Amino acid sequence: MKYNIITISREYGSGGRTVGEIVAKRLGIPLYDKEVVDAMAEECGFSHDFIEEVGEYASVTNSFLFSIAVSSRLEGTTNLMSAADQLYACQSNYIRELAEKGPCVIVGRCADYILRERDDVLDAFIYADMDFRVKHMTEVYQQPEYAVPKWLKDRDNRRKVYYKHYTGRNWGDPQNYDVCLCTSRLGIEKAADMLYSIIAGE
Amino acid sequence: MKYNIITISREYGSGGRTVGEIVAKRLGIPLYDKEVVDAMAEECGFSHDFIEEVGEYASVTNSFLFSIAVSSRLEGTTNLMSAADQLYACQSNYIRELAEKGPCVIVGRCADYILRERDDVLDAFIYADMDFRVKHMTEVYQQPEYAVPKWLKDRDNRRKVYYKHYTGRNWGDPQNYDVCLCTSRLGIEKAADMLYSIIAGE
Repeated sequence: MKYNIITISREYGSGGRTVGEIVAKRLGIPLYDKEVVDAMAEECGFSHDFIEEVGEYASVTNSFLFSIAVSSRLEGTTNLMSAADQLYACQSNYIRELAEKGPCVIVGRCADYILRERDDVLDAFIYADMDFRVKHMTEVYQQPEYAVPKWLKDRDNRRKVYYKHYTGRNWGDPQNYDVCLCTSRLGIEKAADMLYSIIAGE
Repeated sequence: MKYNIITISREYGSGGRTVGEIVAKRLGIPLYDKEVVDAMAEECGFSHDFIEEVGEYASVTNSFLFSIAVSSRLEGTTNLMSAADQLYACQSNYIRELAEKGPCVIVGRCADYILRERDDVLDAFIYADMDFRVKHMTEVYQQPEYAVPKWLKDRDNRRKVYYKHYTGRNWGDPQNYDVCLCTSRLGIEKAADMLYSIIAGE
């Protein structure tokens, strides 16, 4: 097995987490997601609400703060570490620890970037068209208030800002990943098959 | 077999054409590439040099013309069809004819967009990091004058402008494709295996 770790970045409602679950189950390895990483962050003293707000997304407010941080960096001034930055640092350390433990699937949380120095990581991006995402949100998550294009696009944008701020990369740019799979075209099962086949060396 | 046609869009030097060759050979189906489509265009009366210049790339000059064409469209004025547009129309018709003939692999030439109405087409984007592309250009094509990042980036940009002009889409945006595969991370053989496994339903 060339790859020990799989990171999955995904558009909300694309079924990326489900792809990760299928692959982890077939490989018999643990899956670490938002819940796992967030639970650890709570142990570090961050409140649940704060993690929910800035754990992976930039809000309109901190998107503005991010801009200030970036521009003041450019001007060579020194910034105190914000609470959001501390949370990111805390999450990053925890993700590195999880990867050290052994083979696993890690969903979200910039894991592709955080583990970029390792040579045993497969980075996947899972995406889908908007119709699929709305349908998936309705059927699987039963959260009708989120199953609308406007909410999903806003979530994409906030993720992009967050990812750009902490990694300097463009979220969803193929260059960040080994493979990008479209679940609305391939189907969730087929996407999972493809990831599994890379790892299992089939 | 759910998919009859595979279109391959690729970054120059990524080995995308080789991926297509391997898959076509394993499936026992023809591969149509630049040479095939260009030869037909020559039969239609376009000169070899003209096809080389505007067959898939926007030059600095026609990039400017494209902008004018787009803005005049927006203003609702009527444009006469340029020679470049006529070549595109000619290529598009030919690509549709090739797809009608039966299962095949088609490399480049906006085939993903041209065949978008068909439901038996798998669209793949093949890309790689710059080091890989430079190395590949040196080893395989033995064209040292093109094996430099500046030339390759220029080629990317010209393809982006061309693709945007004729399709309205962003070249290399995952949303256009079923699957995006990074040959510098996966290797050319593995990328070909993955494409083959989708088609063969493995």
